[in-house]
Amino acid sequence: MENRTRGKLLLVGFGPGRHEHLTFRAKAVIEEAQVIIGYKTYIDLVKDLIEGKQIIYTGMTEEIDRAKAAIDLAYSGKVVALISSGDVGIYGMAGLAFELLKEMDWDPVRDIAVEVVPGVTALSSCASILGAPITHDFAAISLSDLLTPWDLIVRRLEAAASADFVIALYNPKSGRRTRQIVEAQQIMLKYKAPDTPVGIIKSGLREGQQMVLTDLAHMLEHEIGMLTTLLIGNASTFTYRDFMITPRGYRSKYEGRLDAVVSGTFVSKEKVANMTTKIIGDRGA
Amino acid sequence: MENRTRGKLLLVGFGPGRHEHLTFRAKAVIEEAQVIIGYKTYIDLVKDLIEGKQIIYTGMTEEIDRAKAAIDLAYSGKVVALISSGDVGIYGMAGLAFELLKEMDWDPVRDIAVEVVPGVTALSSCASILGAPITHDFAAISLSDLLTPWDLIVRRLEAAASADFVIALYNPKSGRRTRQIVEAQQIMLKYKAPDTPVGIIKSGLREGQQMVLTDLAHMLEHEIGMLTTLLIGNASTFTYRDFMITPRGYRSKYEGRLDAVVSGTFVSKEKVANMTTKIIGDRGA
Repeated sequence: MENRTRGKLLLVGFGPGRHEHLTFRAKAVIEEAQVIIGYKTYIDLVKDLIEGKQIIYTGMTEEIDRAKAAIDLAYSGKVVALISSGDVGIYGMAGLAFELLKEMDWDPVRDIAVEVVPGVTALSSCASILGAPITHDFAAISLSDLLTPWDLIVRRLEAAASADFVIALYNPKSGRRTRQIVEAQQIMLKYKAPDTPVGIIKSGLREGQQMVLTDLAHMLEHEIGMLTTLLIGNASTFTYRDFMITPRGYRSKYEGRLDAVVSGTFVSKEKVANMTTKIIGDRGA
Repeated sequence: MENRTRGKLLLVGFGPGRHEHLTFRAKAVIEEAQVIIGYKTYIDLVKDLIEGKQIIYTGMTEEIDRAKAAIDLAYSGKVVALISSGDVGIYGMAGLAFELLKEMDWDPVRDIAVEVVPGVTALSSCASILGAPITHDFAAISLSDLLTPWDLIVRRLEAAASADFVIALYNPKSGRRTRQIVEAQQIMLKYKAPDTPVGIIKSGLREGQQMVLTDLAHMLEHEIGMLTTLLIGNASTFTYRDFMITPRGYRSKYEGRLDAVVSGTFVSKEKVANMTTKIIGDRGA
């Protein structure tokens, strides 16, 4: 191993897809990397950032091969970026990469450097399109039972619905996996009202974005597929025009206060003056 | 209202704090804004980006005043950014701003423009420091009972722990609010093993970052405060050196496969060659 350049494994979430929602750090490390490894769809989303680099892509189910190839190339001295859309730590590749590193008895001082670069996850991007559907406590559940027993997924759906979480459903449906979303809706309806707002976002903040605002009773009447994320409201969530809104906390606690503020039409000039207002450029410091 | 410039309200999450974790869109709209409104601590985190702009800041509890001032200034024709750290839609100001807009009968065509700009939320930033502690289904719960009844928070803690979610605790403790984190630990211990890994991150990806990796039984022996986020593992979460790792799905499903890959030490050259490898610059297209 002597005399070899120390390799680096970058685990990178590049956000929803549109480059303006990349973080500066994610863009910098993608530029720094000599090798980019990812699922084909992800590679396509960043292809204009990776011209001239070595690109390795595999199909969706070959995640272990992708992670292992990334680690091995880093061990060989390369700077390698293993990329996921959204956040690489949420239903992304970071967990699998660390599992493999452990199996290999990786030592962060002796062996390759590893950096995790977080990104904007799908529930945040989809929420921004809908307005403010999350706001408060929420649960994220993947309906894919490829690696997780369905009875555990059912337990999580029951638990999250019964405790009135806002719920984000990842991987709701695929070509072959169509039953899960139907069962998920039935579980939700045991605890949440049929008119609970539901936002269905396809390809949020990337090319081909589609948004549907519906409710729990009618959600299955709309297209749901591989590129869809669902956001299901809590008991306080409401819709206003094309927006889905979950209030902070519970209105009763500060309803009077809210009305008082709104009835003023505009906050008075005195009120704004009494807030600490500052033109930072004037500080002189 | 005639002849007045159309104002704009930008609801912006700027991520954990270090500017490299801002998205390009968040930076662009902060630069575009004429007025920046936020909680004092948030203003300080972006102060070098907002020189020369009008800045309005208030204390932590004056959120309604901040949101109303932002909306009123936008109605007066200004481009106003209401900023939060992390993601503005997760325990941020977006929900409250939309509540007020609804009370004012806001019309997105007739009145001000509103844009929500998502950011990297605290659970993603904290996870990136710990390695890969989330990976799979997770729940986010705020322990602040200022606007939410404590019995509902308890129900959510019970539900999330009993269904083996990875759990992110926001607002775990403040100077006056010290009892909640003790009760939360007791609830977790009813369902999760005492040696369940727990990551405690203070000021993640901003100045003063501190990380503690401990377990459920010992978590209260460490400093927890206003700037802390906790990540509590699921039944499969493990630690390896200084990292906290939750595997994707459940190991039993692909354990044999994982061992087979690792035993090859390096993925063979043939194997990498059989993956679709491409130097994108060579495409000619």
